[in-house]
Amino acid sequence: MRNIKLTLAYDGSDFSGWQIQPSAATIQGTLASAIGRLTGEKVLPQGSGRTDAGVHALAQVATFVTESSIPAENLGKALNDILPGSIRILEAVEAPAEFHARKSARAKTYRYRMYRGAICPPFLSRYVWHHPYPLNEDAMRQAAGLVVGEYDFASFAAVDPERGQEESSNVRTIFCSSWQRSEDELIYTVRGNGFLHHMVRNLLGTFVLVGKGTLAASDIASILEARNRSAAGATAPANGLYLVGVEY
Amino acid sequence: MRNIKLTLAYDGSDFSGWQIQPSAATIQGTLASAIGRLTGEKVLPQGSGRTDAGVHALAQVATFVTESSIPAENLGKALNDILPGSIRILEAVEAPAEFHARKSARAKTYRYRMYRGAICPPFLSRYVWHHPYPLNEDAMRQAAGLVVGEYDFASFAAVDPERGQEESSNVRTIFCSSWQRSEDELIYTVRGNGFLHHMVRNLLGTFVLVGKGTLAASDIASILEARNRSAAGATAPANGLYLVGVEY
Repeated sequence: MRNIKLTLAYDGSDFSGWQIQPSAATIQGTLASAIGRLTGEKVLPQGSGRTDAGVHALAQVATFVTESSIPAENLGKALNDILPGSIRILEAVEAPAEFHARKSARAKTYRYRMYRGAICPPFLSRYVWHHPYPLNEDAMRQAAGLVVGEYDFASFAAVDPERGQEESSNVRTIFCSSWQRSEDELIYTVRGNGFLHHMVRNLLGTFVLVGKGTLAASDIASILEARNRSAAGATAPANGLYLVGVEY
Repeated sequence: MRNIKLTLAYDGSDFSGWQIQPSAATIQGTLASAIGRLTGEKVLPQGSGRTDAGVHALAQVATFVTESSIPAENLGKALNDILPGSIRILEAVEAPAEFHARKSARAKTYRYRMYRGAICPPFLSRYVWHHPYPLNEDAMRQAAGLVVGEYDFASFAAVDPERGQEESSNVRTIFCSSWQRSEDELIYTVRGNGFLHHMVRNLLGTFVLVGKGTLAASDIASILEARNRSAAGATAPANGLYLVGVEY
């Protein structure tokens, strides 16, 4: 038995998220059937976490156990021959038996792309949130900085029916949280030891309320204290969000 | 009656080409129904030319005649509110009555993007031809230069059932034809006074045979002289092709 670690990128636009579903195209399901075609085994690769429908990944990590003797590197190449072009295996390596894509993760980085120009190029419409309306970007930068540290993020967490008992805490540590401008794009990057369901998109929706002046940047502190989802802003669209990488 | 000139960009991936079809999503059909919703008129916008299924446009030009009094600029903005994000109106202006998107065109520029890296990023797979195999790029550059000038391009023309009697000549003038490298992409740009059906993709398929060494760059001259489609290479995939712009 070998434990195979895959690093993969995907365009989430045409998938109903990571998690396998009986009658919808998902990343996990597509990957599982490609692995099944190669090894003849019925396996369910475990990701570092689920991504929602429409969310992309630059370097998601997933593991699966196999009795196949195909060298890991060849497995990766063969998977790319079978998978649709919207999912690419960037690396396939053999990992120690105790390595687990989710449980072993120590930090994750997400990115969110907003397009600020008047007309969003059609080639970007699947990959950014088009928001051409006025925003106070300085206030948004200030608000982003206020979530750095260890906090209870309940105000930014969607109810997650899939969540296990062992994960009952909403406390997470955010190491970096910042905005940067790149021509017509306003890009948010956040790195933390873990993220609750919809957390990055809920942070985004709240930062946009700060940008609009509906909230002040300093309101972030009281929203965190409230530990109540209704205190924060709406969930931003999925298509601007990218899982950038997972650290172990 | 006003003659409206639209400049539009589109991601052709999810469309069955430009030309309206009874039971498939096309650019022309999608545009026609959006215009119909705004003006209440049944119009068929005329493009500078058709693009095939999967082919993209950075600046296609189309015209239509309307009795609507909506200012052109507002019409463009209102169309963007109705159209899918994969089609964007970049400009809408009133044009002289005699202006015709196809007949008035004096030159067109196309671009073709090849991705040469081993693994094509999933965010590019709709937008490039992934060709990671060895190619002699110098020979391809030389071959590209040999189609500059006025030639009969019958060897590079697909049979076009839609073609009118008035367009019976296969003679076209190519002003520029060149390759450039941009990191992992090899990009071909061609500007000419007109293009036959599939001509750019057939040139591409032939240049790739030169790159592989199946043909010599100097064979381009005899392929042109043959005036026979079977003398040239296969038609390259549609998804790497872009209509860059139309000159009047």
